[in-house]
Amino acid sequence: MEKAIVLLSGGQDSATCLAIAQQTYSDITCVCFDYGQRHRIEIEYSKQLAALAESDFQCIDVRFMADLSASALIHSDQAITHAEGALPSTFVPGRNALFLTVAAMVAAQKGANVIVTGVCQTDFSGYPDCRDVFIQLQEQTINAAMDINLKIETPLMHLTKAETVLKMKDMGRMDWYALTHTCYDGARPACGTCPACKLRLAGFLSAGISDPLPYRQGDGSDQFGT
Amino acid sequence: MEKAIVLLSGGQDSATCLAIAQQTYSDITCVCFDYGQRHRIEIEYSKQLAALAESDFQCIDVRFMADLSASALIHSDQAITHAEGALPSTFVPGRNALFLTVAAMVAAQKGANVIVTGVCQTDFSGYPDCRDVFIQLQEQTINAAMDINLKIETPLMHLTKAETVLKMKDMGRMDWYALTHTCYDGARPACGTCPACKLRLAGFLSAGISDPLPYRQGDGSDQFGT
Repeated sequence: MEKAIVLLSGGQDSATCLAIAQQTYSDITCVCFDYGQRHRIEIEYSKQLAALAESDFQCIDVRFMADLSASALIHSDQAITHAEGALPSTFVPGRNALFLTVAAMVAAQKGANVIVTGVCQTDFSGYPDCRDVFIQLQEQTINAAMDINLKIETPLMHLTKAETVLKMKDMGRMDWYALTHTCYDGARPACGTCPACKLRLAGFLSAGISDPLPYRQGDGSDQFGT
Repeated sequence: MEKAIVLLSGGQDSATCLAIAQQTYSDITCVCFDYGQRHRIEIEYSKQLAALAESDFQCIDVRFMADLSASALIHSDQAITHAEGALPSTFVPGRNALFLTVAAMVAAQKGANVIVTGVCQTDFSGYPDCRDVFIQLQEQTINAAMDINLKIETPLMHLTKAETVLKMKDMGRMDWYALTHTCYDGARPACGTCPACKLRLAGFLSAGISDPLPYRQGDGSDQFGT
């Protein structure tokens, strides 16, 4: 019985990863993080998704991150901006490095050989820690640190958002998307206008599939301009 | 004004690193971790050492580690053992990877370009995350994750414990060692018999210098067999 850790933020990509991991691994532990994110409602959805997948679930308290970053992803008094050539204001320096390191500690404890994460270079939004070069280094570092042989799998690394949506459709798990949370705003229904919502909606539009998530501005039909 | 982060556990090696860092860097932030260690008294000594060095001090709450490791360094119901060819029971998988990743997040926040850590390959006690190969990889990983150019300095990497002690003597900071904590047991005076105390005492003995720390069994004079 192969064991895997799935980094499950509760967003669209990590939910897709959970569905993909289920096709290969029979014993899955979903790990999410409480880092003081303004959209912390995603933790609740992460938990619901793990339950739906009949996986174990752990939420890990890394709220110290809120003191270490001025990111707009954590502090609601910061504006969400992304100037040309600059890092987005939602970038939390070191976030994925921390999450993968902690996930490796969970893997060591559980006897899992694999971490699955939904980072994606294609639509990486300017986050350096979503690039394949970082993932390769992080994997080597974890293995050197712990004297183990762990693999970090990134099934979405080279997919577009539209391809991710189509993959989920192929797996017959589109209903899971209704339990995901993407909006930076942390409210339901999703705002439909922040960069995260826009990226998500553009992916569904490009895939020609309606997003099952309700939006405050725009919905499944609006996505097609009707 | 060059800024540096010093990982200050409150032990002998990290105190030496703080003294070394003071010779180069004028703006130092000491970082220590509360990870539920059984010798958590070291946090108090870390704080006192930082005050003595007139450095900033941050203790970061990573107590989630206590749930992720069965290490004898955290759980006092585990025996401290080190069988030939096996990892020591005090090994906490991923500890240094986590500490360096978090230190890099502090560095990014403070605008520091350097992390100084007292890991040492010479007397590495079987901990894979004290080896130079790990440190090199961790540095590359942090830089790829955060798109920065941070250096991890390890001034003790290739020194013996005796050489570390002599270095501290040269710097005129032997009195700082009275404020360090090494003993796994977490009590004062130190036990003098656990693997950590034994390694420390052997270093002083080899350097021909008396440890200013009081011990329950053995003291400065006993170290020389008197």
